Amino acid sequence: MRKSIIVLALLAISFSAAANDSLVFRNISSEIMLHGTCYENLRVLSKKIGHRLSGSPQAEQAIVWAQKALEEAGADKVWLQPVDVPHWVRGKESLKLKFAGSNEYKEVRMLSLGNAVGTDGKMLEATVIIANSFEEFEKIPAKDVKGKIVFFNYRFRQDLVQTFEGYGDAGPYRWRGPSVASAKGAAAVIIRSVSTGLDDFPHTGAMRYADTVKPIPAIAIGNTSADLLEQEMRKGAVQAQIMSECKMLDTIRSFNVIGEITGSVYPDKYIVVGGHLDSWDVGDGAHDDGAGCVQSIEVIRALKALGMKPRYSIRAVMFMNEENGLKGGLAYNDSALARKEEHILAIESDAGGFSPRGFGLAMEENERRQIRSYRHLFLPYGVYDFEREEGGADISPMQRRGVPCAGLHPDPQRYFDLHHTDNDVFEQINHRELKLGAVALAQMVYLASKYGL
Amino acid sequence: MRKSIIVLALLAISFSAAANDSLVFRNISSEIMLHGTCYENLRVLSKKIGHRLSGSPQAEQAIVWAQKALEEAGADKVWLQPVDVPHWVRGKESLKLKFAGSNEYKEVRMLSLGNAVGTDGKMLEATVIIANSFEEFEKIPAKDVKGKIVFFNYRFRQDLVQTFEGYGDAGPYRWRGPSVASAKGAAAVIIRSVSTGLDDFPHTGAMRYADTVKPIPAIAIGNTSADLLEQEMRKGAVQAQIMSECKMLDTIRSFNVIGEITGSVYPDKYIVVGGHLDSWDVGDGAHDDGAGCVQSIEVIRALKALGMKPRYSIRAVMFMNEENGLKGGLAYNDSALARKEEHILAIESDAGGFSPRGFGLAMEENERRQIRSYRHLFLPYGVYDFEREEGGADISPMQRRGVPCAGLHPDPQRYFDLHHTDNDVFEQINHRELKLGAVALAQMVYLASKYGL
Repeated sequence: MRKSIIVLALLAISFSAAANDSLVFRNISSEIMLHGTCYENLRVLSKKIGHRLSGSPQAEQAIVWAQKALEEAGADKVWLQPVDVPHWVRGKESLKLKFAGSNEYKEVRMLSLGNAVGTDGKMLEATVIIANSFEEFEKIPAKDVKGKIVFFNYRFRQDLVQTFEGYGDAGPYRWRGPSVASAKGAAAVIIRSVSTGLDDFPHTGAMRYADTVKPIPAIAIGNTSADLLEQEMRKGAVQAQIMSECKMLDTIRSFNVIGEITGSVYPDKYIVVGGHLDSWDVGDGAHDDGAGCVQSIEVIRALKALGMKPRYSIRAVMFMNEENGLKGGLAYNDSALARKEEHILAIESDAGGFSPRGFGLAMEENERRQIRSYRHLFLPYGVYDFEREEGGADISPMQRRGVPCAGLHPDPQRYFDLHHTDNDVFEQINHRELKLGAVALAQMVYLASKYGL
Repeated sequence: MRKSIIVLALLAISFSAAANDSLVFRNISSEIMLHGTCYENLRVLSKKIGHRLSGSPQAEQAIVWAQKALEEAGADKVWLQPVDVPHWVRGKESLKLKFAGSNEYKEVRMLSLGNAVGTDGKMLEATVIIANSFEEFEKIPAKDVKGKIVFFNYRFRQDLVQTFEGYGDAGPYRWRGPSVASAKGAAAVIIRSVSTGLDDFPHTGAMRYADTVKPIPAIAIGNTSADLLEQEMRKGAVQAQIMSECKMLDTIRSFNVIGEITGSVYPDKYIVVGGHLDSWDVGDGAHDDGAGCVQSIEVIRALKALGMKPRYSIRAVMFMNEENGLKGGLAYNDSALARKEEHILAIESDAGGFSPRGFGLAMEENERRQIRSYRHLFLPYGVYDFEREEGGADISPMQRRGVPCAGLHPDPQRYFDLHHTDNDVFEQINHRELKLGAVALAQMVYLASKYGL
């Protein structure tokens, strides 16, 4: 009888704990949906400061803004963490095409790829050759590549329902296409943008030259222009003129911005929730990754507003330089190692401010099982998918040394229409979707802080 | 040994059937994501024809368009089904407010509610009284209501994650607010729009006068204007001037548009997939419900393009007059009854062209169980929620007599920002989200046709 009383008592505790979690989930959600400031914060970051590539004056303004926003959110401590970042600038740039049978060059909308070299403002003129894939390009003899402008015309696979798979599939054309072409003597590279958009927005994004090749100019054109170029090349030879002032300047001092709620039981153990403060130098970086920044700040604000006392220290981290160097993620990890800070979980939101659908779990299988056991709590909030394993770029240095990492996984359909374009702007953000992402992050932080990992 | 061979053979068949379903799901998805025409069809319906309230010239154009689109999609038969519909027209309308301490009337953006009476173009001037809920309104003595303009200032509950619950909660202020106010002698009604929008778009939508009350003018204002009015009423008396030409004309002949693929085994048994062709007379009705129409046409196109021969007859039905009468849904059901057409399933898409998340299942529990057993097939397409029980308005007459009904359940966060406003336009549609909705519909039709219900 004693035993059954104990069993009943334990059952009662466990039921009430579960009921309590679902109630706390509800409170977190209501707090953010009714009183959340992340949407208005994002309006300021996007519309008042705008795009903010590492090293730019706007990136500096964003650092000041983030510090203030974290203080207003009620963080116990806010500080800047020094990071030395690359400083790439675009300058003026243009692409003109002359189609077979025409004597005139026609200007085409374009963006140089990030980190690319330019033409020093001079005109680079050459014949365009087309390759629909790396496989096709391999078959072209080097003599036919030498001195030419290579057009990598690889299409984003619209049939892949998970667009991040499509990004992984097409991304190498941006990342290493220029090196592949240069290795065969190409003068420059044009890529079809890594884009799901049915439009002409060119998508920039990071590229990297292999150490063994000569850096050559590398630009992206939108899908509509790529369709046109493809079609015109079927008719005859196309000449291109590329002009670009883009270049890499000296490394510059910048900062990660960190706000902390000190843990009530384990002040020296940490849960990170973060996004990256830098963006590309186009649009206003609302989805990539203003959203992740304001959502992380919202987590701090909501926990404080609800009077919650997390057992672990909670850090909202705005990483600098995710886009073209990852120096902020590396610096944060180096600092954590040097200070022997134990991190029980790091979460990143860097896939857009859309309706949350799940979390990618980059961690050990037993940890994954634990988080999956919370699935029923998340379901009423439309968060159902815990099967993926992606964390996030900024937290990947921590992930590589075994810190459990998670990535917020929002609905992925619209992201690659906007990603790295002039169309990634605040107007593309829905207030409820953005807030629901913050809700899911705060709920996950709450559980990790309550149960550990 | 014989027995185990049979068991193994049965297992093999059942596994291959399951593997086959997942392959067919993939083929349907790829066909629509790569070659679907629904997005371009919606561009024509939205941008070339525009909004199309029952009885309007645009509704007639939409009927001709739908017939042609179904023929181009490859339907075996396409026909028009006569429906007599109400014919309400808006005409000119305006709302002006004079705040305490001011001598000037200020024009405020507004829309009359659908089916409402107007002021015959005359000026109706009266003092505004406020009620934040029906409960508050009940406590106001009739003498204080008589001759006044009642402002129902009920807010859409942003804390409800499922916005359709918020719509159900706030909707009665639009639907029966005018009757509630008129019963106490009010001269007119202004409602805070049934809206999640952080903007000033007024939302129209159907209202209905109780038989026992005098019809009075009824208008909606956007959230920003409602905030302003609420705030000004705290300072002192507010006067309003309402002018409206809106009125109900004579009933007019219109049509449902139906396209059919004839079943290979059960040509006389039917699966319906549909949306409604009419819209409100604002915006261009892209989400409500151009999306459901073009998705239903896409189901026909994709099944035909893939050479599939459904066992049951598949009908894509574009219902007329969902918005202010439901006459199309009633006429379809009457016709089906008169012709003794057995319907094994009716599916409606009328919740916007957003990423699909599930299906509401308005049917018997055993049928629900059967459909839930397909859940694993839908999961890779982000369709996970089969717990809701909503079907759709147009198919509700069939549902009431026991036909199994299902409603496509897309992500609901953005819908009530746009619903029944000038902002429900094609530019608010994402091509991939729209197509994925069509994918889910076609997959459900495929399963129902293969396994019955």
